Amino acid sequence: MQEQKTAVKNAAIIYSGGLDSTTLLYEMQHRIALAITFDYGSNHAGREMACAKENCRRLGIEHIVVELDFFRRYIRSSLTSGSDAIPEGTYDDDNMRSTVVPFRNGIMLSIACGIAEDRGLESVFIANHGGDHAIYPDCRSEFVKAMDAAMRAGTYMGVRLEAPYTDISKADIVKRGAAIGVDFAHTYSCYKGGGHHCGRCGTCRERKEAFAMAGVPDPTVYDN
Amino acid sequence: MQEQKTAVKNAAIIYSGGLDSTTLLYEMQHRIALAITFDYGSNHAGREMACAKENCRRLGIEHIVVELDFFRRYIRSSLTSGSDAIPEGTYDDDNMRSTVVPFRNGIMLSIACGIAEDRGLESVFIANHGGDHAIYPDCRSEFVKAMDAAMRAGTYMGVRLEAPYTDISKADIVKRGAAIGVDFAHTYSCYKGGGHHCGRCGTCRERKEAFAMAGVPDPTVYDN
Repeated sequence: MQEQKTAVKNAAIIYSGGLDSTTLLYEMQHRIALAITFDYGSNHAGREMACAKENCRRLGIEHIVVELDFFRRYIRSSLTSGSDAIPEGTYDDDNMRSTVVPFRNGIMLSIACGIAEDRGLESVFIANHGGDHAIYPDCRSEFVKAMDAAMRAGTYMGVRLEAPYTDISKADIVKRGAAIGVDFAHTYSCYKGGGHHCGRCGTCRERKEAFAMAGVPDPTVYDN
Repeated sequence: MQEQKTAVKNAAIIYSGGLDSTTLLYEMQHRIALAITFDYGSNHAGREMACAKENCRRLGIEHIVVELDFFRRYIRSSLTSGSDAIPEGTYDDDNMRSTVVPFRNGIMLSIACGIAEDRGLESVFIANHGGDHAIYPDCRSEFVKAMDAAMRAGTYMGVRLEAPYTDISKADIVKRGAAIGVDFAHTYSCYKGGGHHCGRCGTCRERKEAFAMAGVPDPTVYDN
């Protein structure tokens, strides 16, 4: 049985340690050979990464951290400029626009695609979802389709992009995660990167709302 | 006049310092605000980069070097494994396959796209050409079209990919460069990275052949 499971592990995943990608990691664990966390100097990298390491350890999935130093130097965003720069408010407010990291998913997917081809892995998973569409153009279905085509055309193996949450909401992800027993207490979302979730920034508000809408108890400790 | 020229400088270029991208840099100099050299630890990075710096200095174009340390660690190729690993022979032989760096153009284009959006630049130029198609999937027209679509869809500005040499040969590039006075002596191609071009590796053979086919005198000093 164990050998059969190993044989179909043909995918990598872009894995932050947040709620969305942790749910995807658990859901697709039978197919995931490698989890890749990108450290682009975001405020919350440390807390998220600790969750990422722990979940990979629990599932026995190889985990690597790829450091992208060029972000801080050449691609600006409040997400990489210290926690004071993070706006408080709802996730879809205009002020969340400052948290956009230009073409971040394109960059992470391209590097993951190169690593996947190097290792003979056929797919790269990413956990973008419907709630991201309003603010982040590189989370939308049109981007996902074009990037999938670019990855297939640009590799010998025809590496595929799989983004199964593109058209569902964060509340749907919470429901799916709860159904398969994801330990949400070991996921981290807050853009401020404090010891506890701040409860006030856009991602904290979105996280709370998703649990409420899904009707799933929220195990998160919030500061407020 | 100077101000008019400055006003239309709306593009970045992926610029190695090789023959192809130097010709493109000269040809599109009126539109190029930023030249980006990626250092992914290839054997010939030092020599090529010196040419890149010099040509940008001559044209008054800002030049940045983006270091990509993850390549050496996670994406293998003979191009990043020391000069002894570079095969000798023709450019289209099977043994050149070892010089493929998985999804290199996808990775460089994605990062350049993020930097372009950060700076408000509308396009990214790349100098892939028809002779690369046989070996490198991420140089082909199908990849270029899909990547252009991904960049447009994944950015606020709709950053475009411009690859004007995709369907022409390296000999055609030499002709175009000669016509506009490119100083080919200040370009570097050899995958071995020595003081002079080795004259035997696939890229040196391709370079010699391109000058011969174009009927343009080759100013390159070859070791053999």
